[in-house]
Amino acid sequence: MFILSLLIILIAVGLGRILSRAIKQPVILGEIILGMILGNLGYLVLVGPIPQLVDIQSLQSLIFTGDDLKIMSHLADIGIILLLFSTGLAINFEEFKRLEIASSVVASLGVIFPFLLGYLVAIFFGFSTIIALYLGISLVATSVGVNASILTELKMLRTRLGTLIMGAAVVDDVIGVVMISALVGIVVTGTIPLARISLLVVFVVLFFLIALTLGIKGFRKFSEKIHLGKESVLLLGLIVVLLFGLITEEIGLASIVGAFVAGLVVGQSRLAAEVREHVSLIGGAFFIPIFFVFMGTKFDVRAFLTIGLFAVVLLIVAIIGKIVGCGGGAKISKFSGRESFAVGIAMIPRAGVELILLKFALDYKIIGSNIASAILIMIIVTTLITPPLLVKALKMIRKEKKENEKV
Amino acid sequence: MFILSLLIILIAVGLGRILSRAIKQPVILGEIILGMILGNLGYLVLVGPIPQLVDIQSLQSLIFTGDDLKIMSHLADIGIILLLFSTGLAINFEEFKRLEIASSVVASLGVIFPFLLGYLVAIFFGFSTIIALYLGISLVATSVGVNASILTELKMLRTRLGTLIMGAAVVDDVIGVVMISALVGIVVTGTIPLARISLLVVFVVLFFLIALTLGIKGFRKFSEKIHLGKESVLLLGLIVVLLFGLITEEIGLASIVGAFVAGLVVGQSRLAAEVREHVSLIGGAFFIPIFFVFMGTKFDVRAFLTIGLFAVVLLIVAIIGKIVGCGGGAKISKFSGRESFAVGIAMIPRAGVELILLKFALDYKIIGSNIASAILIMIIVTTLITPPLLVKALKMIRKEKKENEKV
Repeated sequence: MFILSLLIILIAVGLGRILSRAIKQPVILGEIILGMILGNLGYLVLVGPIPQLVDIQSLQSLIFTGDDLKIMSHLADIGIILLLFSTGLAINFEEFKRLEIASSVVASLGVIFPFLLGYLVAIFFGFSTIIALYLGISLVATSVGVNASILTELKMLRTRLGTLIMGAAVVDDVIGVVMISALVGIVVTGTIPLARISLLVVFVVLFFLIALTLGIKGFRKFSEKIHLGKESVLLLGLIVVLLFGLITEEIGLASIVGAFVAGLVVGQSRLAAEVREHVSLIGGAFFIPIFFVFMGTKFDVRAFLTIGLFAVVLLIVAIIGKIVGCGGGAKISKFSGRESFAVGIAMIPRAGVELILLKFALDYKIIGSNIASAILIMIIVTTLITPPLLVKALKMIRKEKKENEKV
Repeated sequence: MFILSLLIILIAVGLGRILSRAIKQPVILGEIILGMILGNLGYLVLVGPIPQLVDIQSLQSLIFTGDDLKIMSHLADIGIILLLFSTGLAINFEEFKRLEIASSVVASLGVIFPFLLGYLVAIFFGFSTIIALYLGISLVATSVGVNASILTELKMLRTRLGTLIMGAAVVDDVIGVVMISALVGIVVTGTIPLARISLLVVFVVLFFLIALTLGIKGFRKFSEKIHLGKESVLLLGLIVVLLFGLITEEIGLASIVGAFVAGLVVGQSRLAAEVREHVSLIGGAFFIPIFFVFMGTKFDVRAFLTIGLFAVVLLIVAIIGKIVGCGGGAKISKFSGRESFAVGIAMIPRAGVELILLKFALDYKIIGSNIASAILIMIIVTTLITPPLLVKALKMIRKEKKENEKV
């Protein structure tokens, strides 16, 4: 029955793209919406007037229970890894290095504001300090994946603004992972695990340093020596990205951070264009849309209706925190007002690392299913609202530039 | 740990390709051998003099137990479906129709001989009638996948001989599935389920008729009306192949038969070249080699050493049955002696449908693990010996043709 599950998901992807085209929005929006519908078909039928010709709930249980769920989840994992890999491949590395400081400013302010807001709101709603710390952390990371997808579609990935956004989003993710690692240490040992945190920070710095110097040089030389067919080039790319993903996972970071760095490394070699083209194809037609549809299915209408006020406040705080923090950071780094606003908007979505943080928190019983539902809604809604808002903000910038050119 | 499993498999693929290049054999041979090594690393270390620096058995258990095994198995399933899809896409359909009768003759004789030989050998070794019937059936189907892969690599897929081989292999597979379906009926009901068999035959004929007439026309018209980007073309192809796979599975045939027919259907539309290119890439660099490595890992040195004489006899019978049956069929259909021999060789490998038959037989407790091991060895060895033999046989034909041209 695995074929049926896969077929249902791919049809959802297809319908999602048709929907996106019809409402003139980025494809991921349609994919996520179709996932949401797929994940809540049972409710729709139960409350709707449609005669239940197909046993939709058992159809649904094919995909969302047992083995098939695990497989879809793993295909989605490959999707997010390939998305980050192709982002790293596509990025303008020279610009990325030039904007290092600006990215760090944007990222830092984009960490501090949401963290404080999330923490304070949770305390206000009467949650414990540990839960409040987790909720703060859960607002920190930005979805590199959603950003990459939208910026690629708008052909903004290689621009100065696109590079700033991607750089800041990656830094955000790294900070988020370090923070959750610290929190888990506190929960497990009862004290702040300074040794563990320091070690992680050392590893992270070493990894970035080695990968972006020796890694780039080494792979460039290696790629000049070998002669490979089309398929083998893609195979080599996949081996490199999995290797980097494994290394980052081993040192305690998310594998998607490794995938992004792998893209930067391969992107500076003569194989860059070929690998990028093939990875976009294999990812874009199969694994990456599966990730977005799969994410959409995580939405639960019932949870949304019961969690109530707290979910709404968390959502508002998640949005304001990034617009103020990251937008402010961009303004400090001498980007224009409209550009800074666009940067703030772009940093709103939470989807990649947040889901990993969520799994951590559930595994270590830091939070229960009620807060998990609130976080999921925050993830889904921030991801849903960003594409149309960002498209508008970026169009405003283009208009501004055109007007400046006229003058 | 899923990333590690996938990384190990992809590295095995890479090493397998390097090995194949070094020994000048088709890539699948190297991939299967690397799979065999991967599947038996534990034994190698236990009997070898190498100090056990890495805990290889626990490394192995990552891939070959639990969830990761299931995921690799599903990725391999996608691989075999894509392989058959791209075979259907690549085939010369006009030639395929012209050679319909010749293919049927080759296939029929290639079914009768191996079936009788397998049945008689089993009776001779004292097995029950049911087991003997199963062993006969298990020698019937030919691995379309292995054939497709070798013929593609030798650029023989679109030739007259290649088309004959693929046509006959597909017919073999269909007959094999119908026969096992009959046997399962006998085992379950105690009588020969004539109604069930007739229904299946009717479904099969209807499916082929409708798909290859209305299906081709309908998809051709549909493809002329739509305008799709690169990724969406591949997505559409994947939806079609899964849909056909699902239909054939629902009517009681293997999904790979549906995948092949889906290739024929899409192959007659204007999207053929584009879909073929993308499917070969996504399949060839990822899913298909995973299938071959995965198949290799099914080999078990220990079983091979204990099953003894019966396994060897079954193997010999499997080889002779196809050379005599299919080679004879080709000769009757007026192919030259060398060409007929090549056809016989090409029909030796058993890998796709055989594994499905094996699963059926185990599920319905028709056979035990001893016979399963013998079948597995037969599958592996016939797959292993075919590529070098077929390469030689085809080179002999080319030589013959060149000499004829000189005269």
